[in-house]
Amino acid sequence: MNWKLAARAEKMNPSVLREILKVTERPGIISLAGGLPSPQTFPISAFAAACAEILETDGQAALQYAASEGYGPLRQAVADMLPWNVDPAQVLITTGSQQGLDLVAKVLLDPGSRVLVETPTYLGALQAFGPMEPTPVAVASDDEGVIVDDLVAQARGKSPADAARFVYLLPNFQNPTGRTMTEARRAAVSAAAAAAGLPIVEDNPYGELWFDEAPPLPLTARNPEGCIYLGSFSKVLAPGLRLGFLVAPKAVYPKLLQAKQAVDLHTPIFTQRMVSTVMKDGFLERHVPTIRALYKRQRDAMVAALQREMKGLDVKFNVPVGGMFLWLRMPEGIDTVALLPKAVERNVAFVPGAPFYAGEGDPRTMRLSFVTASVEQIDIGIAALAATVREQLAHDAAARVQHELAEN
Amino acid sequence: MNWKLAARAEKMNPSVLREILKVTERPGIISLAGGLPSPQTFPISAFAAACAEILETDGQAALQYAASEGYGPLRQAVADMLPWNVDPAQVLITTGSQQGLDLVAKVLLDPGSRVLVETPTYLGALQAFGPMEPTPVAVASDDEGVIVDDLVAQARGKSPADAARFVYLLPNFQNPTGRTMTEARRAAVSAAAAAAGLPIVEDNPYGELWFDEAPPLPLTARNPEGCIYLGSFSKVLAPGLRLGFLVAPKAVYPKLLQAKQAVDLHTPIFTQRMVSTVMKDGFLERHVPTIRALYKRQRDAMVAALQREMKGLDVKFNVPVGGMFLWLRMPEGIDTVALLPKAVERNVAFVPGAPFYAGEGDPRTMRLSFVTASVEQIDIGIAALAATVREQLAHDAAARVQHELAEN
Repeated sequence: MNWKLAARAEKMNPSVLREILKVTERPGIISLAGGLPSPQTFPISAFAAACAEILETDGQAALQYAASEGYGPLRQAVADMLPWNVDPAQVLITTGSQQGLDLVAKVLLDPGSRVLVETPTYLGALQAFGPMEPTPVAVASDDEGVIVDDLVAQARGKSPADAARFVYLLPNFQNPTGRTMTEARRAAVSAAAAAAGLPIVEDNPYGELWFDEAPPLPLTARNPEGCIYLGSFSKVLAPGLRLGFLVAPKAVYPKLLQAKQAVDLHTPIFTQRMVSTVMKDGFLERHVPTIRALYKRQRDAMVAALQREMKGLDVKFNVPVGGMFLWLRMPEGIDTVALLPKAVERNVAFVPGAPFYAGEGDPRTMRLSFVTASVEQIDIGIAALAATVREQLAHDAAARVQHELAEN
Repeated sequence: MNWKLAARAEKMNPSVLREILKVTERPGIISLAGGLPSPQTFPISAFAAACAEILETDGQAALQYAASEGYGPLRQAVADMLPWNVDPAQVLITTGSQQGLDLVAKVLLDPGSRVLVETPTYLGALQAFGPMEPTPVAVASDDEGVIVDDLVAQARGKSPADAARFVYLLPNFQNPTGRTMTEARRAAVSAAAAAAGLPIVEDNPYGELWFDEAPPLPLTARNPEGCIYLGSFSKVLAPGLRLGFLVAPKAVYPKLLQAKQAVDLHTPIFTQRMVSTVMKDGFLERHVPTIRALYKRQRDAMVAALQREMKGLDVKFNVPVGGMFLWLRMPEGIDTVALLPKAVERNVAFVPGAPFYAGEGDPRTMRLSFVTASVEQIDIGIAALAATVREQLAHDAAARVQHELAEN
């Protein structure tokens, strides 16, 4: 049978990350790898009450085909919860915010289109954009996100036709680094993008998970006509419902809606109504602080464990002020892809950093999640990771000595 | 702001059908237009029991991220219910079977790729394929579906590189025509496609909705390595959950899975478990016959009403042996797009047939759904439709007389 694949499919490769993570799923492994929210934060009884209420009072409508734009009261709730003046007509409910990335790519990216991303960036975005065959361009970044001068330089391209279609930014507690864009950087990025006519696709799945103070205003709030904003209920309620949303200006909303219709007609109306029902009466205002408190305790535990266990090693890591991830750079000579199987032998798993780079990856980096494992598991896991690193360094040093002896 | 759209987005147009259907949503209109399953068939109490059970016994897992392939027990249930030997490893759960079309297009269609479709074909498939910018080719079709000689001729193309990537077929109670492919035609199509090396994408959302006897075996059952099969729970349980599946051979499954991951990570696990739980203990075997009986009564009512009300008019229609739709061809001179607003004035709506054609549409055709409206509404609606047609024909005849008088 002549199954001729599309060119874009020939280029698809199994996710490196996914293959790695499969290894780490075996029982007994402490996984600091995956980005799974802590299941103890899922409001199970609230969902149970919502399901019963919906099916009892309006079951037929909750199980019928529905509007592609999304459930009206949920679109209104999204508009109400965002910190700028959002017209619900500009809200599109998506099957997870990952779907928002697929729709954006379909509507804005031609083969070869330049799309700007952070260094490093969310791997799932690279995977979502991939099928439209753009050219991802890594913008130089520091602890606060993209560096404005390089953003402006990369936006332009070699000719007007080569101008970047958009920059994809994750300003709050970024995946994978956990870093956050400061108010000053946001103001500068927003102004520079507007001056360059560069659209921003702002992804904010983690924004509500702040520990001590809320992050600065989203980029979209500063220039709604120049930005598409992506949000998610995965981190504040539950990821298994696959419920997200986007807010887009009138210039692109109708096309995103048409792309959405073609993809799955609409997001499941039952899950939309579950979330809409649960959110009534300010539920999130009571619920989200409990998630923040839990994750802050676990971040503190991981930072303390790293300070304790990595002492004396040239290991650098940040202290994220929210979200789920922490970014770590190993001593010279350590390649985290090679390190992973050795860590797994000691029953701890992490995610190597290299796959998160659009350009050449830094082999010394890794992403650690502090939300899935418990405080006790974090302590054991970080100790095992430090032991793995020390063993590797000792092994490398011994190999160097042997090599020198052999040469002399 | 420089929102430059992708070429594929420039070509996206608001769905003609959708715009038409908006008009028909006003209260008091009897809609024979939409393809909405009858909500009285939704097993609301079974879903309520399933939601309660899932959240009580395994709430955390039912709300967490899950495997891209789909929920294991549901994949097994799908394999078990299909009438050929299906390995659950080849089943991919999709967010509605519409998503299956998007994934297939991503993996198999390059810009300009020729994709063969029936005359007419499911509009949603044309919309799903569109963003990959293929060239849809209408294969000559009769009351049994595609005609084999034309299928073979179109498969080849002008050169080997121009060979069609696949043919998209809906053999059971097709949308929009309601027609069904006979056993003889299936055997011939299957053999011809295999001989030509032409992959088949078989869409079967309505197959369970047969009235007197089950339709012949699916095309995929005859050559699983040469076919991708798409199925849905929308018509046997509820469409609002957006739950479908595909079965694909090893040659393409991994690429479809990667495309799925990039699109929405996975189908909502909660809705997958709802359906999996409801399906236990042979529920569908008891439930689906009640849908069949209801839809058969409504088909009978529509056929009887058409025979009664259209008497003396040169109106042709088929008598579908299952599914949701009936196809109708109006007398010469009637354009159903122009007829629709006049029908709506008489409080009845239908869908004009022309948008369902990949090539030039037949302006005299229309699709009628017999499942959403009640028997009483069908009687009133068909009478109103006949009155509209008679008025239009009288108006046209009067205009012709006037025209002739003016000319002489």
